[in-house]
Amino acid sequence: MVDLQIFNTIVIKSKVIDEYKVHFINNLKDSLEEQLMRSSTIFVIDENVYNLFKTTFLTFVDKQKIILISSSEKNKTIGYAQFLIRELIANDIRKSDTIIAIGGGITQDIVAFVSSILFRGVKWIFYPTTLLAQCDSCIGSKSSINFDKYKNLLGTFIPPNEIFIYPHFLSTLTDSEIKSGIGEMLHYFFTDGIDQALSISKNYHSLFIDRNNLLPYIYQSLLIKKNIIEIDEFDLDIRHKFNYGHTFGHAIEAICDYTIPHGQAVTIGMDIANFISLKLNLLSIVDFDQMHNIILQNKPQFSINQDNIENFVIALSKDKKNKGNQLGCILSKGPGEVEKHYLTMDDEFKKYILEYFQLY
Amino acid sequence: MVDLQIFNTIVIKSKVIDEYKVHFINNLKDSLEEQLMRSSTIFVIDENVYNLFKTTFLTFVDKQKIILISSSEKNKTIGYAQFLIRELIANDIRKSDTIIAIGGGITQDIVAFVSSILFRGVKWIFYPTTLLAQCDSCIGSKSSINFDKYKNLLGTFIPPNEIFIYPHFLSTLTDSEIKSGIGEMLHYFFTDGIDQALSISKNYHSLFIDRNNLLPYIYQSLLIKKNIIEIDEFDLDIRHKFNYGHTFGHAIEAICDYTIPHGQAVTIGMDIANFISLKLNLLSIVDFDQMHNIILQNKPQFSINQDNIENFVIALSKDKKNKGNQLGCILSKGPGEVEKHYLTMDDEFKKYILEYFQLY
Repeated sequence: MVDLQIFNTIVIKSKVIDEYKVHFINNLKDSLEEQLMRSSTIFVIDENVYNLFKTTFLTFVDKQKIILISSSEKNKTIGYAQFLIRELIANDIRKSDTIIAIGGGITQDIVAFVSSILFRGVKWIFYPTTLLAQCDSCIGSKSSINFDKYKNLLGTFIPPNEIFIYPHFLSTLTDSEIKSGIGEMLHYFFTDGIDQALSISKNYHSLFIDRNNLLPYIYQSLLIKKNIIEIDEFDLDIRHKFNYGHTFGHAIEAICDYTIPHGQAVTIGMDIANFISLKLNLLSIVDFDQMHNIILQNKPQFSINQDNIENFVIALSKDKKNKGNQLGCILSKGPGEVEKHYLTMDDEFKKYILEYFQLY
Repeated sequence: MVDLQIFNTIVIKSKVIDEYKVHFINNLKDSLEEQLMRSSTIFVIDENVYNLFKTTFLTFVDKQKIILISSSEKNKTIGYAQFLIRELIANDIRKSDTIIAIGGGITQDIVAFVSSILFRGVKWIFYPTTLLAQCDSCIGSKSSINFDKYKNLLGTFIPPNEIFIYPHFLSTLTDSEIKSGIGEMLHYFFTDGIDQALSISKNYHSLFIDRNNLLPYIYQSLLIKKNIIEIDEFDLDIRHKFNYGHTFGHAIEAICDYTIPHGQAVTIGMDIANFISLKLNLLSIVDFDQMHNIILQNKPQFSINQDNIENFVIALSKDKKNKGNQLGCILSKGPGEVEKHYLTMDDEFKKYILEYFQLY
């Protein structure tokens, strides 16, 4: 049992549903039973999570009321959303019902999207099971659906009505999934300052041994995100700063066909953004080095060379945040200081990218 | 040229986009040209409207920037929405672009739905071309999409960023379409009082001869709707009162396979709701008669008898607003006084329905 007393319930103001809360819980069964008492519910559970916690679920949830989904990137589609809608109808869902989603970010994307279009909105409650979903995606209202060859082209803004973070889920994750979550947390910390990043770096190895050590960082990431999304929920202005590391990270994911987990690609993405910031004299070498040494611990193997630089630039050129041919990306002026820039993807730019991968 | 000075721009407060405005315009070309100056635009036009106003459109809009859609009830689907998304992508749409939708309620449903899920929201501007869209659906944020055999099962809340009412479109409509719009206007008037309903009834025939005579009623309908949707945009509470006439109207549409236009079905629906209110001693015979005489002018031929009463009740039993087996519907206590009731659809209830159709 973890002492969760120090993690107060986080309340997030939202334009879509007034407010929603993130609770930290020690007892999954009690929490789920409370939901069952409150309203008519239908469970949508990632099939891997279901298999791991089958006994817990089946002691109190009617199996008829559980819909299993296969939460893979290839299922983040309108087609799969329609499959889920049909399953919910077969379960006789009503507008007054609540969907309880249990899974990671992809489960969230599919359930959130369906919840936002079914009956023009059905309540849903989320139990994030991955570190990435716990520390990041569970708040912020976004859902993302791939369309044809375009990643995350479709989506809506709909937060869950409540979120429950159950630390024990973290013990079921692979080290790679933990690293992915840490990458996303580092990205929040670097937009905020240096203290949290230094702290997570100092305790880096212990996070893998006792996963409960991740909790304070999950909590801090959510607080940093809360402060921005409450002002700019619809990502029109200051929330853009959270694209830090993501522009380059998304392009890395694209050219390696999503074999590198998202948060790990973001880890490299931040390092590239920092390197370009250094080259453009926005960032001092001292700040670059300090951040680079923290990033290094979490950085996966990956390289861009003369052979694939063009594919990398093509992937970058498709970014939604671009203006014409200019790459819209967030650069760093030092810990806690990020800034939006539009970069021309010319030979000089490509030289910086190649230089980065030769050096690091 | 109509004197539109008396129709002030209506400003609607919204939770989704802060506020949006309804303008009354005399010059379509000037208005569209203003949109073209303001931002990068893509036109989505109902093919019938396009054919009627082709010359106007093509004098200043690049044909490449016009997407034609076939706005039929059978195209209000996820499949057709995907067709439109692919057309928009082929047109190189960006998140910062504005979609200009020109058509009736179905055009609105399809464009609104697509606008709400593409890039998590794209701006759209609406030029409603039918009376029903001008006096009712253009405000209130709802989009509706049919799914499998279920009508309006999916949808979102997304108002247009601006609405332009161009009276000349009304002159292109059939008398049946005008009657449909009048049905919807009467339903607003009866939830508000008796004066507007008496006025429209007095001028009924003139509305078909000079369509500009409809404008004051369009304006009044929008004002009545505005006052309620500003309080309950997401249809959780007091907006329910606008289901008056609709519960029975939807069931009529369903059993006659949508051969009776929506607003005409609502016309009959109000009369049935009033008759049941009379039978339940909620409504006086004097009030029933006064409203019945107004409704009568606009009422299409339609009957329910011993042969199809069961189908009618089955259609009613599928209403989203029901609670268990009880029919959730709005009844009348007199002009301007509506009230939500839950009715058991027993033999007595069926007797009332049959009695209504024997009498009227």
